[in-house]
Amino acid sequence: MARILILGAGVMGTALSVPLTDNGHIVNLVGTHLDDDIIAKLQAGYPHPRLGIQVAERVTAYTCEQLSEAIKGVDLVVIGVNSHGIEWAAQALGAVLSVDIPILAVTKGLAGDGEKLSILPDVLCANLPDGVRDTPAESLRDRIQIAAIGGPSIAQELAARRHTCVMFTSTNPALLQHLAELARTPYYHIWTNTDIIGIEVCVAMKNVYALAVGLVIGFLEKAGKAVNDAEMHNLAAAIFAQGMWETAYLVDKMGGKTESVYSLPGAGDLYVTCQGGRNSRMGRLLGLGIPYSQAKAEYMPNDTVEGASLALAIGQTVENMIHKGDLDAIALPLLRTMIDIVCHNAPAIIPWEKFFVR
Amino acid sequence: MARILILGAGVMGTALSVPLTDNGHIVNLVGTHLDDDIIAKLQAGYPHPRLGIQVAERVTAYTCEQLSEAIKGVDLVVIGVNSHGIEWAAQALGAVLSVDIPILAVTKGLAGDGEKLSILPDVLCANLPDGVRDTPAESLRDRIQIAAIGGPSIAQELAARRHTCVMFTSTNPALLQHLAELARTPYYHIWTNTDIIGIEVCVAMKNVYALAVGLVIGFLEKAGKAVNDAEMHNLAAAIFAQGMWETAYLVDKMGGKTESVYSLPGAGDLYVTCQGGRNSRMGRLLGLGIPYSQAKAEYMPNDTVEGASLALAIGQTVENMIHKGDLDAIALPLLRTMIDIVCHNAPAIIPWEKFFVR
Repeated sequence: MARILILGAGVMGTALSVPLTDNGHIVNLVGTHLDDDIIAKLQAGYPHPRLGIQVAERVTAYTCEQLSEAIKGVDLVVIGVNSHGIEWAAQALGAVLSVDIPILAVTKGLAGDGEKLSILPDVLCANLPDGVRDTPAESLRDRIQIAAIGGPSIAQELAARRHTCVMFTSTNPALLQHLAELARTPYYHIWTNTDIIGIEVCVAMKNVYALAVGLVIGFLEKAGKAVNDAEMHNLAAAIFAQGMWETAYLVDKMGGKTESVYSLPGAGDLYVTCQGGRNSRMGRLLGLGIPYSQAKAEYMPNDTVEGASLALAIGQTVENMIHKGDLDAIALPLLRTMIDIVCHNAPAIIPWEKFFVR
Repeated sequence: MARILILGAGVMGTALSVPLTDNGHIVNLVGTHLDDDIIAKLQAGYPHPRLGIQVAERVTAYTCEQLSEAIKGVDLVVIGVNSHGIEWAAQALGAVLSVDIPILAVTKGLAGDGEKLSILPDVLCANLPDGVRDTPAESLRDRIQIAAIGGPSIAQELAARRHTCVMFTSTNPALLQHLAELARTPYYHIWTNTDIIGIEVCVAMKNVYALAVGLVIGFLEKAGKAVNDAEMHNLAAAIFAQGMWETAYLVDKMGGKTESVYSLPGAGDLYVTCQGGRNSRMGRLLGLGIPYSQAKAEYMPNDTVEGASLALAIGQTVENMIHKGDLDAIALPLLRTMIDIVCHNAPAIIPWEKFFVR
């Protein structure tokens, strides 16, 4: 039995409590400052409002003000915030975390600093305290162990104990083994893999490419079915394939393994993300011809659309890297189109003639 | 302007007449012996009964008895029969084809002879006449040029001129260039690629893996939605990913390029095939728990389910190759499960613990 703190009480953070408590662990579920309503509901004994399930008795819900209390005696911290919360999470944990407690992050994204792209575990690490807190040996940034989860995992399904297959990744195989044993259940199937770069790039990029596949929903709605009832699956599939193609380029370029692309983190996660959700909803709006800033403000002001967030987070950096020759100008036409759509309100036009080049 | 014979008047063969006639070519559309009703309809001026469109005026429909008349003066033969018809097509063409007329095949499948797997262009070639017909120089088998089409292409959508992206493949780049120029339109986007093995393996295997993804429709129907409305997309995505993973193994093993897996022929074609169609319908029946032979006989007696046809065509050969050590026993658990289901009426049970191993 382990004592586990989950930071972030959104759907994914909370869903992870299900396999963990099924395995007999104690979970302290700590909301972010945006989760106060959820925490209040859970504390009052109601189901999670977005996940639609009652958390287990072994779960105790805390507000973020109670983080220092909730972290006492824990063996593992799971980070379940969205990509916008990763720096906050690092800073909040930095004040209370011991160096011997590993982190398992389910947050997906990449960061761009204008010159290079970084995977989120590195961003997390970079935002932890440098140097000493209590003793010189306790430099969190240098010594913390971070693992991450990638793979197709709709939170509601995991919470309902439906078969879910994921990869746990870090550079430390022993840590991976330990974490997988803590979390593995007959429905939560876990593989371990040390290709942290490849897996993190895949699971981040899938959001922007799912947004691209989502465009087709809007295109079809605008054009209507054809006289023979034909829809636009060929178009969606070509965009899906180009997304995989570009992901493979980026994975290779950043030092990951392309085999992660044709496995759970790449193909699996992109497939599941195209089955609905916020990227698809925003994609539809963009495909209908609504400029991104208007679509976001009018229709999804309170939703985090991870594909758009990624385009905003890395857009300028990708363009700078192409300009400097660090990324190949011809390798990422769909990503560049999505960046133009999200960052510059460009119309949604598919650049066919630039696809599948390397 | 070229004169093109399309052999096979099913949905895919007929759909290809649309970009070809849009480019000003003359098309002679020749049905197989199963297409007599379709040919009669087309000859009488009705729309294609399954494709839902009227063929162009430049299309002349012929029955297979008229093949020797229809082939006069043609510059290219397109083979649009299904995988069961490939040997018949080769034999029929063998009697009338000149060696200087190239073949472009859209049929997808693999063949197994008990010892090894072959891609369909090789099967086609092997069934053409060996040695002389008119003169010693005219050995069709040795000298015919064969290209193939792979990629996500629902026929009804192509026929409705909806954006469709495919790869033309052969070992001869000049032939590819020529064929792409004949067929490319503003909606039929064509790339050329000499990885004929990789592309053919991808587009064949996608049928059996789409059948596997289709199982989930039946699983979900049997189990129902969860209390929180959760479905089973995580499960479908994991099967999708395992399909890609196994395809990559087979492509590599047979001498193709794994980059075809994360491009149009692999990811794109599997994605589109999972959006519906006969593999999905049969997958649902199997997922509901109906044994394959019963499902086929009772519900789909007149349908070619390409995923099941592939399992039947290569099942014994795959098992023999594993037994001999020519294929790795641990590399293809999902394919072996699908072979068991189709060839031996095994129940549909997903072998999670064997996934993602190499």
